[in-house]
Amino acid sequence: MSHIESIATGTSVLLMADGDDVAVALRDLTPGEIVPVGGGDLTITAAVPSGHKIALNDVAVGTPVHKYGQSIGVATAPIVRGDHVHSHNLGMDLAARVHEFGTVHTELEAPSGPSRTFDGYRRANGRAGTRNYIAILTTVNCSGTTAKLIVDKAKAEIKARFPHVDGILALTHQSGCGLVLESEGAQILLRTLNGYARHPNISGVLVLSLGCEMASTSLILAEGNLPEDTLVETLSIQENGGMRASVASGVEAVLRMAETLDSRRREPIDISELVLGLNCGGSDGYSGITANPALGWASDVLVAEGAASVLAETPEVYGAEHLLTARATSRAIGQKLLDRIDWWEKYIAINGGTMDNNPSPGNKAGGITTILEKSLGAVAKAGHADLSAVYEYAEPITQRGLSFMDTPGYDPVSVTGLVAGGATVVVFTTGRGSVFGCKPTPSIKVGTNTELFTRQGDDIDINAGRIADGTATVEEVGSEILELIIEVASGRQTTSEEFDVGQEEFVPWHIGAVT
Amino acid sequence: MSHIESIATGTSVLLMADGDDVAVALRDLTPGEIVPVGGGDLTITAAVPSGHKIALNDVAVGTPVHKYGQSIGVATAPIVRGDHVHSHNLGMDLAARVHEFGTVHTELEAPSGPSRTFDGYRRANGRAGTRNYIAILTTVNCSGTTAKLIVDKAKAEIKARFPHVDGILALTHQSGCGLVLESEGAQILLRTLNGYARHPNISGVLVLSLGCEMASTSLILAEGNLPEDTLVETLSIQENGGMRASVASGVEAVLRMAETLDSRRREPIDISELVLGLNCGGSDGYSGITANPALGWASDVLVAEGAASVLAETPEVYGAEHLLTARATSRAIGQKLLDRIDWWEKYIAINGGTMDNNPSPGNKAGGITTILEKSLGAVAKAGHADLSAVYEYAEPITQRGLSFMDTPGYDPVSVTGLVAGGATVVVFTTGRGSVFGCKPTPSIKVGTNTELFTRQGDDIDINAGRIADGTATVEEVGSEILELIIEVASGRQTTSEEFDVGQEEFVPWHIGAVT
Ligand SMILES: [Ca+2]
Ligand SMILES: [Ca+2]
Ligand SMILES: [Ca+2]
Ligand SMILES: [Ca+2]
Ligand SMILES: [Ca+2]
Repeated sequence: MSHIESIATGTSVLLMADGDDVAVALRDLTPGEIVPVGGGDLTITAAVPSGHKIALNDVAVGTPVHKYGQSIGVATAPIVRGDHVHSHNLGMDLAARVHEFGTVHTELEAPSGPSRTFDGYRRANGRAGTRNYIAILTTVNCSGTTAKLIVDKAKAEIKARFPHVDGILALTHQSGCGLVLESEGAQILLRTLNGYARHPNISGVLVLSLGCEMASTSLILAEGNLPEDTLVETLSIQENGGMRASVASGVEAVLRMAETLDSRRREPIDISELVLGLNCGGSDGYSGITANPALGWASDVLVAEGAASVLAETPEVYGAEHLLTARATSRAIGQKLLDRIDWWEKYIAINGGTMDNNPSPGNKAGGITTILEKSLGAVAKAGHADLSAVYEYAEPITQRGLSFMDTPGYDPVSVTGLVAGGATVVVFTTGRGSVFGCKPTPSIKVGTNTELFTRQGDDIDINAGRIADGTATVEEVGSEILELIIEVASGRQTTSEEFDVGQEEFVPWHIGAVT
Repeated sequence: MSHIESIATGTSVLLMADGDDVAVALRDLTPGEIVPVGGGDLTITAAVPSGHKIALNDVAVGTPVHKYGQSIGVATAPIVRGDHVHSHNLGMDLAARVHEFGTVHTELEAPSGPSRTFDGYRRANGRAGTRNYIAILTTVNCSGTTAKLIVDKAKAEIKARFPHVDGILALTHQSGCGLVLESEGAQILLRTLNGYARHPNISGVLVLSLGCEMASTSLILAEGNLPEDTLVETLSIQENGGMRASVASGVEAVLRMAETLDSRRREPIDISELVLGLNCGGSDGYSGITANPALGWASDVLVAEGAASVLAETPEVYGAEHLLTARATSRAIGQKLLDRIDWWEKYIAINGGTMDNNPSPGNKAGGITTILEKSLGAVAKAGHADLSAVYEYAEPITQRGLSFMDTPGYDPVSVTGLVAGGATVVVFTTGRGSVFGCKPTPSIKVGTNTELFTRQGDDIDINAGRIADGTATVEEVGSEILELIIEVASGRQTTSEEFDVGQEEFVPWHIGAVT
């Protein structure tokens, strides 16, 4: 977790916390260079790519290496001051962490002035939506193609005739049958589908089934918990005479809904009613320095205003969970997080892996060595607010303040859980580059480094790399993220929406057996 | 397994094998009716829907109930002659089966006359394709939307300018990252993607990656086992400047390939070079009487001609595996099947289920009570040929004759494994109705009952229900299936191809943890 507020222009090597064993290269370093760091001069002895780590101290084999003031692993080969520190000399630190509960409390400054609003859709159940979508929810893979065909046929007409409808989505997936109904996997799928059906950004839903599957329409709608103003239609391909007839009936159904939904209008709603989802993908060595702390700043302001903000990606807070349990508002909440981490350790062990597998090839190329290091950077997205709830995957987000949802780190699966839980805006930080979207919820993408923004700026909404360049502070970028959240919640399109991204990325978490 | 060759018109109740405890209603029966069966008269005492079972004998609780001459379960409540037999009085039979190896050998009659040909594409590696497709293979969910956009933009031009190219496919999926590379799950995914890349029906492949994922382009192409005449292009979204630039580059790449591939032509190829995939979905009480035995007849003829035919869906041969091991050409082949079944029993147990969960709600509505009954009907698709190989999921199908591939029963996952293995034509039987397709391989759908064909005929290529109606024999429908296989292999479109089904249904088997 970075407490660095700004970085001087031209900084070559950045020390994250006093006493750290490593610093971060903010440009490519070459052997023989002498650079200032921590009040002294450091001679570089190896080529160190931008975003990667360089040793400030000698570290003996088996001894912890510190960054962010925390252990990010132990030396697996002797480390000498000036060395490149990465997978060749740094490994997992298996030492048990001390978990304290509620020992850290941060009083967030209540923003001055009148409380702010966004222009949203007030739904019949009192929730606030940021979009007005029609969704075709498929019970099973078998109805996926039919859903796509309905969207293909209806899309242009909806766009042309119903300007107040944001669009129509085919939410297709690869599951829905060959599952044991009582299994955790089937329950997660049903909870996710139900979460989308009741989402405040979905005003009309067509539940499209084949007709003989496990995940039946009635199971998805069983809880009867949709907003009363959500229009609901159902269609079974088997009962409706097959694909051609179902496409025709489906197109009629969605146009009928669009006609009604086009009369809905936005109205000012207090920003305390926003539900922000926090996520990251393709992290690099800059994530924990630039984009994540800036997002944390924005999250803290929203939490201070009374909004909900939800961190996720359990395998990517692994090793940094002690920082979150210390911020838990009760022992039960902290313990629930630890219980989920226990679940993950067992789940991964059964499947023959370890939690330290997580940094992906791209993360590693970007300078992240261990899951501990990745996690310390990742939790910065959650700012400094107290942790007031822990949810299971796709559970309804009912609590204001900062909370945590147990999801995998894999982007589409994680965000599908957050959206199912009710997130109405998502902010997604990326170092390696991402083309992610998550309709019906808008996703704002924040890049961690300027090189990425230069290369792939089309896909990035905000460049937090300016913090490392020394041209903006964490607060300045954080404040830009906050303003964009409010604008996007009020209807402004994100880059991913302009590209129409976010249907393919509907990926309910799949656990358990397929038969 | 049915040995019934034909059924007299007007038959109300069908006895599958002498000595069976139950017969099958071929129409809805009402209490009080008296119907002839097995040389006697039977008084119906309960409403029995078409496709469901009716008791011929009294069966005491705990005693096996026979159909097809085999136990399909044990009575869980006292059964009296004339009763409806279903989930309320019939449960799983857990008695161990005796597994013999190679005790049953069937000499298939070599077809008379000169060997027959289809018009296919001869590939550089000697394999025979039945289609000429360009595929965009996505390494990870993150490149899925970009792949779809490329197809959206290039499709119409390819169709208009390149009549000898069958089309362009976006093969998107929900996995590719958050996987342990060494895990069984990751290896299955890579094997499946590689199987599509080398498929004889794919002449041009664009491997589209995000750039930081586990399932990298190089891992997918690592084995270098593609036909030499397959055009290969690769594109990384991160390296190529993001989504907009990648869509433009991708469209150029596929149009370039289409230009070359449009010169490919079909030529006569011996039908012994066909690789037939056998599958079923939404089975009902008619499956084992009509469509499956007719498909078995066609499979036997192709095997006699020297072609490959591959049964799959391990959870749906469960309980009938002794019929297959007896047909194995060696003890090792029979044992490999038993080993896969052992794997499944453990896999399902870890995930908290049992193999008898399998009959889906739709199967049960269609009259199938237990997995044993479903399996006995399902193996009829494989005719009577000896079993000459057992493959793991997505393994290359190298052996002629009848073989078995270990896959789940869930349709898209099962057929994705068969296509990855090299199936060039799939025949899919369905009782409840299906809108399945599996591009780049054509899928022929055979319906089990005339009511289905009347209701959903648009989606069904052949109505095997005529066997139950008494208007066609098993051999007549089998021969129709065989002729359609040859025509479709030569380029005729199936119903699913006319509807453009088969991209959404690309579903690699997902086992193991997502992180
Ligand atoms: Ca992440
Ligand atoms: Ca992630
Ligand atoms: Ca999809
Ligand atoms: Ca089946
Ligand atoms: Ca199946």
